[in-house]
Amino acid sequence: MTGGDRILGIDPGSRITGYGVVDRRGSDLGFVACGTIQTVSGRPLAERLVDIYEGLVKVIDQYAPDVAAVEEVFVARNPRSALLLGQARGVAVLAAMKSGIRVYDYSTRVVKQAVAGYGQADKVQVQRMVRALLGLSAMPGNDAADALAVAICHANHSPSVTGPGAG
Amino acid sequence: MTGGDRILGIDPGSRITGYGVVDRRGSDLGFVACGTIQTVSGRPLAERLVDIYEGLVKVIDQYAPDVAAVEEVFVARNPRSALLLGQARGVAVLAAMKSGIRVYDYSTRVVKQAVAGYGQADKVQVQRMVRALLGLSAMPGNDAADALAVAICHANHSPSVTGPGAG
Repeated sequence: MTGGDRILGIDPGSRITGYGVVDRRGSDLGFVACGTIQTVSGRPLAERLVDIYEGLVKVIDQYAPDVAAVEEVFVARNPRSALLLGQARGVAVLAAMKSGIRVYDYSTRVVKQAVAGYGQADKVQVQRMVRALLGLSAMPGNDAADALAVAICHANHSPSVTGPGAG
Repeated sequence: MTGGDRILGIDPGSRITGYGVVDRRGSDLGFVACGTIQTVSGRPLAERLVDIYEGLVKVIDQYAPDVAAVEEVFVARNPRSALLLGQARGVAVLAAMKSGIRVYDYSTRVVKQAVAGYGQADKVQVQRMVRALLGLSAMPGNDAADALAVAICHANHSPSVTGPGAG
């Protein structure tokens, strides 16, 4: 793209991985796509990790983002679920890296701050703000909204590829 | 291989990932190789995950194992370290799956039971037993020993590819 960049936001999960693609042109944000990669819960985890990886590689091939942004989760889950989530996050990050795009990490608090104005915003507030910020005609689902939120967060936090004077 | 199979054991970690390769022929176990993939602690996690993934793909290319066995960690770590470990484990499992080999999971307790006779064995006991079981002339390092242990565990728990009557 000229005069902007395309950001892929990823919300990894062992069952559902959300993705959201936005274009930034100067200070404008444009919605491109969002969706989820769902894995079959009865399948072995190893196969689900392959599904997440290959699903994201396909999304990256289709939308050709310039960068990826992934939420760095710090919620007080138990070690068991953190280990599961970590495995999904690992293959998600790898999918971006192996596709040649850089990965940026944002904490949940920073993501919520960026889209909803404060770090303790709940899921519905995040969905509403993502919808408003991108001018969507319908409410995105939970996981897709979280992925769009981290993409928006990256757009707000990093300098545009056109330089600080753009927009 | 004819009349046996080659097992890759993996002990994933965000800093050091151990691997160990053993051949099983009937009831005999033969040492093939072991080592570690070390990542540079100052590098971003995303790059270290690529290093772990590509390091393991190289090991798999070199030794052509038939299956992989990975420890399923359940120790009471905090969610933060479980999330880190999970990401390393995710890309390790993916490296095997994308290389076309099946992955088997074994809990720490089952691995220790298999090599040392009881599930609470400490690191030194595991190293000693791995050395004895494989007839190694020197003591393997911690991470390589843990990887060899999970490979030995798989050898003891799964039927040989030559069938139940072999050995």
